[in-house]
Amino acid sequence: MRRRATLEFWYEFASTYSYLSAMRIEALARTADVELRWRPFLLGPIFATQGWTNSPFNLYPAKGRNMWRDLDREAARLGLPPVTRPTPFPQNSLSAVRVATYGADQDWLVPFSKAVFETSFAKGGSIAEPAAVGRILDSLGLDGTQILKAAASEANKGRLKVAGEEARSRGIYGAPSFLTEDGELFWGNDRLEQAIAWAAGDRPDGLR
Amino acid sequence: MRRRATLEFWYEFASTYSYLSAMRIEALARTADVELRWRPFLLGPIFATQGWTNSPFNLYPAKGRNMWRDLDREAARLGLPPVTRPTPFPQNSLSAVRVATYGADQDWLVPFSKAVFETSFAKGGSIAEPAAVGRILDSLGLDGTQILKAAASEANKGRLKVAGEEARSRGIYGAPSFLTEDGELFWGNDRLEQAIAWAAGDRPDGLR
Repeated sequence: MRRRATLEFWYEFASTYSYLSAMRIEALARTADVELRWRPFLLGPIFATQGWTNSPFNLYPAKGRNMWRDLDREAARLGLPPVTRPTPFPQNSLSAVRVATYGADQDWLVPFSKAVFETSFAKGGSIAEPAAVGRILDSLGLDGTQILKAAASEANKGRLKVAGEEARSRGIYGAPSFLTEDGELFWGNDRLEQAIAWAAGDRPDGLR
Repeated sequence: MRRRATLEFWYEFASTYSYLSAMRIEALARTADVELRWRPFLLGPIFATQGWTNSPFNLYPAKGRNMWRDLDREAARLGLPPVTRPTPFPQNSLSAVRVATYGADQDWLVPFSKAVFETSFAKGGSIAEPAAVGRILDSLGLDGTQILKAAASEANKGRLKVAGEEARSRGIYGAPSFLTEDGELFWGNDRLEQAIAWAAGDRPDGLR
């Protein structure tokens, strides 16, 4: 039996366009028979190496204004609910990404990740405090208190740090990003379809 | 008779993704029965107000590396010839944009603009020197010498400056950008389809 192709989905919980990808990537991957590997990471350290101490959408106000309008348009086009804008933006995603890192091999990683994105961008809720992340875990029938504690361990913090170093070393500079098994890097929700096609072996003519 | 909807296409000759849009916007607009207004402008002064003295693709090397690969992929996907990378990048587009500004109301604006983009991104030619721009004009059966001279007039330089101020005042922060008659701003070749649809009156549910 042929092994299914895998696509890595690198996402950051504070990232608006990661939200759009998270809500639609499963259906696209299923149709193309591509297996997904969800890779939560922190964008802040990568932005810091680029000299950014804030989201580019805040650093460049005209870009930020249009991003929110574009997000409204894209959410509507993709059939998602109206977008809520987190305050402050970007939200502190440290607690959520620690939990996702801890849950990397758990079957709750995907439902948890989608619930975090929905809380932030569709329900107007905070994801910044550990208690908010704990409530999301509880709502999924998990033990929020226990998972938060395990996620705050030094071993898990180390895993998160290694994931960030891996992201940077593999050329990732923003989120969402998609990486195929042969190292092809696609950046942005706009490239999700192309990334899935590439992973499935469908490449534009003349490229390899 | 109903007046046709118009879409403004703001482009910069040094911009890689403006090239992709320039080569495909006419067919899309024709299908949607949308009239185009080609709006050449200089991105440099807008980048300067954002604190950038170079292309972001040069300022952020990981982003730049992936942009060139993405451009190869997108060109192949869109059926365009293999991309050539101008050296240096970005090319000095001042002479070309002066000519395009001078030709704003001429029927050669579009063929000239497409020829400049093709020279730069498909034929490996320079567009930086006035002589190179003159050769492109000549190749279109125009009087390169006369047009270059007119394009270098103070009146025409003033028009170009006003276009840049208009771009910024209308929220443009990158290229290509698309502006509808009701002021909806779309940024990037990835939004061309959405911009055309919006101009034609086709909006995502719940948005206005």
